[in-house]
Amino acid sequence: MTQPDAAPEPTGRSPTRNKGRLEALSDGVFAVAITLLALDLAVPATLHSQQHLLDAIGDEWPAYLGYVVSFATIGAIWLGHNAITDYLERADVTLLRLNLLVLLFVSFLPFPTRLLAEYVSKDTAERVAATVYGLTLLASSGVLSLLWRYSLHAGLVRPDASDDEITVLTKRLSPSLVVYGLLIIIGFFVPVAAVIGYLLVALYLLIPVHPALRRRRMAKKAVAK
Amino acid sequence: MTQPDAAPEPTGRSPTRNKGRLEALSDGVFAVAITLLALDLAVPATLHSQQHLLDAIGDEWPAYLGYVVSFATIGAIWLGHNAITDYLERADVTLLRLNLLVLLFVSFLPFPTRLLAEYVSKDTAERVAATVYGLTLLASSGVLSLLWRYSLHAGLVRPDASDDEITVLTKRLSPSLVVYGLLIIIGFFVPVAAVIGYLLVALYLLIPVHPALRRRRMAKKAVAK
Amino acid sequence: MTQPDAAPEPTGRSPTRNKGRLEALSDGVFAVAITLLALDLAVPATLHSQQHLLDAIGDEWPAYLGYVVSFATIGAIWLGHNAITDYLERADVTLLRLNLLVLLFVSFLPFPTRLLAEYVSKDTAERVAATVYGLTLLASSGVLSLLWRYSLHAGLVRPDASDDEITVLTKRLSPSLVVYGLLIIIGFFVPVAAVIGYLLVALYLLIPVHPALRRRRMAKKAVAK
Amino acid sequence: MTQPDAAPEPTGRSPTRNKGRLEALSDGVFAVAITLLALDLAVPATLHSQQHLLDAIGDEWPAYLGYVVSFATIGAIWLGHNAITDYLERADVTLLRLNLLVLLFVSFLPFPTRLLAEYVSKDTAERVAATVYGLTLLASSGVLSLLWRYSLHAGLVRPDASDDEITVLTKRLSPSLVVYGLLIIIGFFVPVAAVIGYLLVALYLLIPVHPALRRRRMAKKAVAK
Repeated sequence: MTQPDAAPEPTGRSPTRNKGRLEALSDGVFAVAITLLALDLAVPATLHSQQHLLDAIGDEWPAYLGYVVSFATIGAIWLGHNAITDYLERADVTLLRLNLLVLLFVSFLPFPTRLLAEYVSKDTAERVAATVYGLTLLASSGVLSLLWRYSLHAGLVRPDASDDEITVLTKRLSPSLVVYGLLIIIGFFVPVAAVIGYLLVALYLLIPVHPALRRRRMAKKAVAK
Repeated sequence: MTQPDAAPEPTGRSPTRNKGRLEALSDGVFAVAITLLALDLAVPATLHSQQHLLDAIGDEWPAYLGYVVSFATIGAIWLGHNAITDYLERADVTLLRLNLLVLLFVSFLPFPTRLLAEYVSKDTAERVAATVYGLTLLASSGVLSLLWRYSLHAGLVRPDASDDEITVLTKRLSPSLVVYGLLIIIGFFVPVAAVIGYLLVALYLLIPVHPALRRRRMAKKAVAK
Repeated sequence: MTQPDAAPEPTGRSPTRNKGRLEALSDGVFAVAITLLALDLAVPATLHSQQHLLDAIGDEWPAYLGYVVSFATIGAIWLGHNAITDYLERADVTLLRLNLLVLLFVSFLPFPTRLLAEYVSKDTAERVAATVYGLTLLASSGVLSLLWRYSLHAGLVRPDASDDEITVLTKRLSPSLVVYGLLIIIGFFVPVAAVIGYLLVALYLLIPVHPALRRRRMAKKAVAK
Repeated sequence: MTQPDAAPEPTGRSPTRNKGRLEALSDGVFAVAITLLALDLAVPATLHSQQHLLDAIGDEWPAYLGYVVSFATIGAIWLGHNAITDYLERADVTLLRLNLLVLLFVSFLPFPTRLLAEYVSKDTAERVAATVYGLTLLASSGVLSLLWRYSLHAGLVRPDASDDEITVLTKRLSPSLVVYGLLIIIGFFVPVAAVIGYLLVALYLLIPVHPALRRRRMAKKAVAK
C-alpha cells in the first residue's frame, strides 16, 4: 500500500481541476451541514392539555438560538473559505487534506449544536455543552486560518494577488484565538453569555459594515490619483 | 479580528468565481432541503388490528399535503433564484451574504412543514402551524426579491440585459406581500384553506402557462418586423 | 404577482447556464436521495438474549433488499438523466419545471422504500407497499421519458445529434410501461416477486452488456469503410 | 425496453461532459456521506442524577471512534477518486456504472459505522460489527482500484500522463487486500484492535509525509539535469 502522496502530482497539467473538486466537495459539505441544522429543530411532540403550541415552541428557545448561531457561524466560515479559494491558483495534495480537516469540523458542528440545544439551562451540563461548542468553533477557525497560511507558504496563491490583499485576508482569517478563548472562559461561568458571544462574532463576520467604508476609501484614492 | 468585508474584493480578477460558488452552495442547499422533505414522511409504525395500510397512509394526509406544498414552493424559489443568477455578471460580498439569508429560510422550511403535518386538524395548534408556515414563505420570497433589487442597485447585473427583461423579473419577484399576507390572515380562521392557497401560489409560479402566450407574442413581433 | 414564465427568456445570452444549474440541482438531489437510503438501514436496537447480531441483521433482509433495489433504480434513472442532458444544447423554463417533477419522484423514492422494508412479509400491507413502490418507479421513468420527448419537441437538442442516436435514446427511455405495469399486477399476488422484478429491471438498465456488442459493431463498420 | 448502453455514445462530442457529471454526483455523495456521519453522534438523552455530561459523552467513545475512522476513510477514498478523475480524459458508460458501485459502498459506510458504535464492547456482537465494517472498507477500496484499472484498460486516461505516474497511481490504489484482510482476521479476536488498525490505514493514506520526500527527490532530479 503506497501513500497517495507518492503519486507524482500532475504538475502543470490540470492545476485548476483539483481546486474545482476541492470546492465542489466543500460546497456540498457546507450545504448539507447548514440544512441538517434545521433537521434538529424538533416539533413539540405532545402538548399538555390546554398548552398553546406557541408556548411549546417557545420552550424550545435554546434549539432556535443554537440553530441561528450555528447557521451564522457556518455561513461565516463559508465566506472565509470562499475568499481563500478565490485567491488560489491551484491546490496540491496537502491542501486537499487540510481542507478535509476544515470539513471535519464544519460537518461536526451540528453535534455540539444539538448538545447545546439539549443542555442549555441545565446547570453543570450547560457548561460542558458551551465549552464543547466553543472548542469546535475555535478549531474550525484555526484550521481555516491554517489552510490560508499553507496556501501562502506553498506558493499556491495567484501571482497577481497584491501584497495588500494578502495581508488583509491573513488578518481576517486570524483564528480569533483571543476572542474565542475569552468566550470559552466566560462560558464556564455564564454559558448563555458565551453562546450569545458566539452569535455576535458570527454576525460581525457576516454583516457587511466595512465594505461601504472601504468603497468610500477606494473612491477617495481614485479621486486623489 | 477583522471583518471579512475588509478584505479588498478581488476586483476584475475573478468576477465569475464568486458567482460560481454562490450557485454551488445554493444548489446544494436547495437539493438537500427538497430531499429532506421526504425524510419526514413517516411510515405508519403500527397498524391497529384489521386496519388496512392504505387507511393508515390515508390518515397521514396532512404530511403529504405539506410535502407537496413545500416541494412546490422550494421549486418555485429555485426557479426565481435561477433567473436572478442568470442575469448576474458577478457577485460581491454583500450579495453572498444576502444569498445566505435566502438559504436560511429555504433550509428552515422543512421545520414548519413538519409542524404543519403534525398539527393540521388540531384546533388552535393548527392556526399557529399555518401562521409559522406562511411567515416563512413570506420571508423567503421577500428576501429573494431583496437579492434581486440589491443586484440591480449594486450594478451586478449584466450590461446586456434589456430594461424590459429587468422590469419583468422585478415584478415577478415582487414578494407577493399582498397574497401571502391575505393567506396568513385567512389561516387564522381556516388554516387548511391557507395551506391550499400556498399550494396554488406555488403551482401558479411553477406551471408554465404564460410561455406559450409569450412565444406567440414574440412570433407576432418577429412577423411584424 | 407575475408568473416566472412571463420573464423574457434570456435568449442567446446564456443558453448553457440554465442547463448547468439544472444539472447541479439534479446531481445534488440524486446524491442526497442515494445516500439517504442508507440512513434507513436500522441498526438492530436490542438483541434478545443469546441472539446473534448476525441473525438480527438477517431478520431485516427486506430493508437490505429495498436498499439495493432503490439504489440500483436511482442509479439507472441518473444514467438516463445524464444521457438526456448530454444531448441538450440548452434548457428552457418548461424543461426546468419538468426536471423538478423528475426530482420530485426521485426524492420521494426513499419513502416507498421504507414502506416496503417495514411491511414486506406482512400480508395485505405487503401488497399496498409493493404497489406504492411500483407506481413511484412507473411515474419516475414516465416523467424522465417525458423530459426527453419535450426536449426533442421544443428543439432543445443539439443540432449535431444524429437521428439514429435520437431514436435509440427515445426507445431506451420509453417508460417501460408494459414491464412496470405487469410487475405492479404481479405485485398484487406475489409482492416479493414484483420487488425482485424491479431489481432485475434496474440491473438490466445498469449492467453494461450491450456496449461490448456495440463496440464490435462499430469496429466492423469502421473496417467496412 | 432497450438498455441505456444501446444508445450510441456521443463520441467526440462531449467527452468531458460525462466526466463532469460523474464528478458532481460523486462529490455530492461523498459530501452527504461525510456529513451524515455526524448525524449519528447521539446526544446523551437523559443524565442519571449526579452524572456529569462529560462522563455521559465519554461513555459513547465508540461512536466518536467510529466517526473519526469513517471520516478519515471516506476522506482517503475521496482523495483516491480525485486522483483518478484527474487523469481521466473522458468517461464512458461502463465507467459511470463502476463509479455508481464505488458510491454504493461509500454511501453504505455510515451503516456499519452505526453498527460499530452500537456494538463495540458487546462480546460476540462486537466481532460481527467489526467484520461487516472491515468488509465494507475492503469492498470500497477494491472497487476504487477496479475503477482505475478499467480506465487504463478502456483507454480513458489522458495521453499526456507519463507511464511513471500511471504506475505509481496503480500501486497506490491497490486494494490493500492484504492489510484489510489481516485486519478483518484480527477483528475476529480483538475487534477494537482492528478498528484502530482501520484508523491507522486511513491516517497513513491521509497524512502527507511522502510529498516532502518526493519534492526533495524531484528537486534532486532537476538539479541532476
